[in-house]
Amino acid sequence: MTSQTPPRRGRLLLLCQDRPGIVAAVSDFLFRRGANILHSDQHAAEDGHFFMRIEFDLADLDERLPDIRAEFEGKVSQLFGIATRWTSTARRKRLGVLVSREDHCLQELLWQERSGDLDAEIACVIGNHAGLEAATTLWGVPFHFVPVTKDAKGEAEERQRRLLREAGVDVVVLARYMQIVSPAFITEYADRIINIHHSFLPAFAGAKPYEQAHERGVKLIGATAHYVTADLDAGPIIEQDVQRVDHRHSASDIRRRSRQVERTVLARAVSWHVEDRVLVFGNKTVVFS
Amino acid sequence: MTSQTPPRRGRLLLLCQDRPGIVAAVSDFLFRRGANILHSDQHAAEDGHFFMRIEFDLADLDERLPDIRAEFEGKVSQLFGIATRWTSTARRKRLGVLVSREDHCLQELLWQERSGDLDAEIACVIGNHAGLEAATTLWGVPFHFVPVTKDAKGEAEERQRRLLREAGVDVVVLARYMQIVSPAFITEYADRIINIHHSFLPAFAGAKPYEQAHERGVKLIGATAHYVTADLDAGPIIEQDVQRVDHRHSASDIRRRSRQVERTVLARAVSWHVEDRVLVFGNKTVVFS
Amino acid sequence: MTSQTPPRRGRLLLLCQDRPGIVAAVSDFLFRRGANILHSDQHAAEDGHFFMRIEFDLADLDERLPDIRAEFEGKVSQLFGIATRWTSTARRKRLGVLVSREDHCLQELLWQERSGDLDAEIACVIGNHAGLEAATTLWGVPFHFVPVTKDAKGEAEERQRRLLREAGVDVVVLARYMQIVSPAFITEYADRIINIHHSFLPAFAGAKPYEQAHERGVKLIGATAHYVTADLDAGPIIEQDVQRVDHRHSASDIRRRSRQVERTVLARAVSWHVEDRVLVFGNKTVVFS
Amino acid sequence: MTSQTPPRRGRLLLLCQDRPGIVAAVSDFLFRRGANILHSDQHAAEDGHFFMRIEFDLADLDERLPDIRAEFEGKVSQLFGIATRWTSTARRKRLGVLVSREDHCLQELLWQERSGDLDAEIACVIGNHAGLEAATTLWGVPFHFVPVTKDAKGEAEERQRRLLREAGVDVVVLARYMQIVSPAFITEYADRIINIHHSFLPAFAGAKPYEQAHERGVKLIGATAHYVTADLDAGPIIEQDVQRVDHRHSASDIRRRSRQVERTVLARAVSWHVEDRVLVFGNKTVVFS
Repeated sequence: MTSQTPPRRGRLLLLCQDRPGIVAAVSDFLFRRGANILHSDQHAAEDGHFFMRIEFDLADLDERLPDIRAEFEGKVSQLFGIATRWTSTARRKRLGVLVSREDHCLQELLWQERSGDLDAEIACVIGNHAGLEAATTLWGVPFHFVPVTKDAKGEAEERQRRLLREAGVDVVVLARYMQIVSPAFITEYADRIINIHHSFLPAFAGAKPYEQAHERGVKLIGATAHYVTADLDAGPIIEQDVQRVDHRHSASDIRRRSRQVERTVLARAVSWHVEDRVLVFGNKTVVFS
Repeated sequence: MTSQTPPRRGRLLLLCQDRPGIVAAVSDFLFRRGANILHSDQHAAEDGHFFMRIEFDLADLDERLPDIRAEFEGKVSQLFGIATRWTSTARRKRLGVLVSREDHCLQELLWQERSGDLDAEIACVIGNHAGLEAATTLWGVPFHFVPVTKDAKGEAEERQRRLLREAGVDVVVLARYMQIVSPAFITEYADRIINIHHSFLPAFAGAKPYEQAHERGVKLIGATAHYVTADLDAGPIIEQDVQRVDHRHSASDIRRRSRQVERTVLARAVSWHVEDRVLVFGNKTVVFS
Repeated sequence: MTSQTPPRRGRLLLLCQDRPGIVAAVSDFLFRRGANILHSDQHAAEDGHFFMRIEFDLADLDERLPDIRAEFEGKVSQLFGIATRWTSTARRKRLGVLVSREDHCLQELLWQERSGDLDAEIACVIGNHAGLEAATTLWGVPFHFVPVTKDAKGEAEERQRRLLREAGVDVVVLARYMQIVSPAFITEYADRIINIHHSFLPAFAGAKPYEQAHERGVKLIGATAHYVTADLDAGPIIEQDVQRVDHRHSASDIRRRSRQVERTVLARAVSWHVEDRVLVFGNKTVVFS
Repeated sequence: MTSQTPPRRGRLLLLCQDRPGIVAAVSDFLFRRGANILHSDQHAAEDGHFFMRIEFDLADLDERLPDIRAEFEGKVSQLFGIATRWTSTARRKRLGVLVSREDHCLQELLWQERSGDLDAEIACVIGNHAGLEAATTLWGVPFHFVPVTKDAKGEAEERQRRLLREAGVDVVVLARYMQIVSPAFITEYADRIINIHHSFLPAFAGAKPYEQAHERGVKLIGATAHYVTADLDAGPIIEQDVQRVDHRHSASDIRRRSRQVERTVLARAVSWHVEDRVLVFGNKTVVFS
């Protein structure tokens, strides 16, 4: 919900054990430095975790952020055992998008970036097939064709990761990328690789989900966007949605409808991530939407 | 969608292998007997099955139905290998509802019956706990307390089935009934026992689904109404729906929200069944909603 | 989301002009009195208004609340020009429900109260028809039949208001009550009378909304729950929802579907109100759901 | 729901006064000519109108269609007073899209056409601003810049209509085209001009709908796709949908969310139209979706 935010807008995400006084300490800290809190969401989970997201305006934010962060570490974080993430909205996050053959998720991201609905920059697209090159470069976004073969999987991934680093990518989006990424890749971008999974998790995990859903006569089909972890398709869920189907829909109709819900759900998840609305803890997320 | 239907309203459900001429033959047959077709839905599945539901008005339907049915058997069914179900809306279907401790699904059925939204009669309620007796008899519906113990499960079920037979029950609704019914029971009411399952099928099948959903941080919770088959919780799906949840919802909030979606989904499924809108084939349904 | 809250749980709702330091001042105030903040939502509107809702735990809340409130007035409210509402969850709000002939909204409220989904007590039901007496008293709730005639409208309303006062009612719910209430009534319960309106506001305001919607061939029907103000059907909106309809639905089908969405929407709005989640300003609401 | 339909697939849409024997006569007619009925939907409205949509396979359809149509006219249509529309799926309908500055609806149509989700061909795009030229021609679709000035409105429209005729356009889509079209234009494409309207019809008709919705604090925003008639924004509704908003959404957030629902609703409506699923009668539609 922040399209044309002023350059002095900052965000603070915060995670700690719940203890009395946290809100007071944090808001007092910001107040004393001249920050004006615009939004503040917090959540105390039943298991004792405390989560907070603050959006604030502060003059000369970008110059002052390193100092403020250091001060906060010394004065507040240590006291309460707080883990924080500070960001300035002046710098839009850079996305690296991995694709295979299907274009619906990529198109949605490209369109939403250009229309300003997605507050991020698509730094590059990497495909293990060349088919989506034209669709990408049309929008002025660099496309890299990196084929992935059984025998040279490691080298291909090395190249992908080098390209992502060179492009200064903050977030990796698997936009219907049909290859598994290695644990090393996942570690490099921990809680920063977003995948979209057709159908419901954890239902119909495995091959031919559309056909399985059709066979089973389901009345709803869905999509799940989640962070990628070592446990395939079982990482922290960011967003889910569904669409109705009925007996008149063939397996290929289901696939087509799934595409609609996949691109919507993925775009929403990426949008929330780049706006620093998602906190991961354990295998779950808190989404301050 | 037919609350105050005239007594001469009939319904024909029909299932066969698709062949040219079926629609012409069936509609010609009805036309020649003076029936006026009000609604007609049909569906030709990719696997060659053909499904049809016709609602028609015919003077003196109830007297003439046996003859018409016999004639149809001889003249049309045999020709095309058609399985049919003929019903007169003059006779509302009779429900037997099995319950345990939770009342939300029962309450919804009782209320929808009384308000006329559910075109059926609740003939009796059978509980393996006594707790819902008052809530049931308040509405003038008989309640039978049939405790189910480990050692006398068979006898308890015998008693349940005798009560259902005595009450002239057409459809059995498991309204959060927390016991497994035997294969013999299922056979007696084949495709006529409707169950409501918390959460999604086939996801989170098993114990403590609300806790599982909470642990997993799902963003949608759902309910599935299905016919009961020997394969527990995996029978033909009639209806599904979902509701949003987020990190602020505890496991008990999820349970409460689930209740809302469970009672809605079950009532919809029962409603479609008693209006002869559901055809079962294999492990799927066609719902002419 | 608070079914079995401990007796020491309090809520603070707060409305003022946005100024730096509010959050710090409020949270510091609560912290120093030993309160532990469990949830805190805030919102700074573009027009300069600031809204906040805090849920906190505090030992001996009920004894200390008057003092804390007074202290807050002196130390914080005056400084920032804050309007506040303090409540203890120990005291469930008392509802007075006004009805006419239709029972669906009343039934939903009665059921949700009894099941614990609605954190309130239905103190009494007042009908201008006698028809819903049995349905009400069945649940142990007092029913008063107060006929409203053209010539004696004022006296009838006097009697209603006396009954509501005697029952210690906090919130008045117009559960498909088909009479207009007077400005004096509205003033007595300012921002505390909740109405449910079939169809969309401001569309189809006026007579026969189901017929209008049917005539117009709408594909969605809805319901709006709002606070009652002098401007009929145009008070601050609390909640809205819709359901799909199509050409197969008659005007009476639309009425039936509307009932489902009306009772859901009204129950949600009442629930949010009694949990102190709704703040009114101007002709709008902030709902911390 | 038919993307790669065989060339011999035909569709028959039919509208008449309801009389016994129509279904029998129509299906018998088709059967005798060797057609195999794949889908058949019908609807008898309460006011006596009868609607039917049939999808059938017939060898050599394209050659035989003129004869079959003529025969049907003589043998069936006259008997029952039926108005019909016959189409062959071999010929995809041609769209002419009128745009102004906003691209979201156009992008959705272009993408859905290319991905095969929209069974039509975008023959040309005409803009009264030049801004969307590049976005259009990128996809290989011709773009015509036809400025519309107050003084030369008539000439501009003449040019538009000539371009549409030259491109052999069947359906005109107003994809956020911010100009009024003349009665003559509407007559030329009667029931074949589809418009998308932000927000709900008939609510918030008029200027600045997003601001109005924001001012009013609505909880749902929507879009309506309808056929254009002389009565501005009040033509037969094809499809509607909504999305949730809350107090955190500014007027510009509401505009952004509206864009999402507008493009979805418009694409659905256009899709149904080109698949001959929409029948208009009076000021309503029957959509066989």
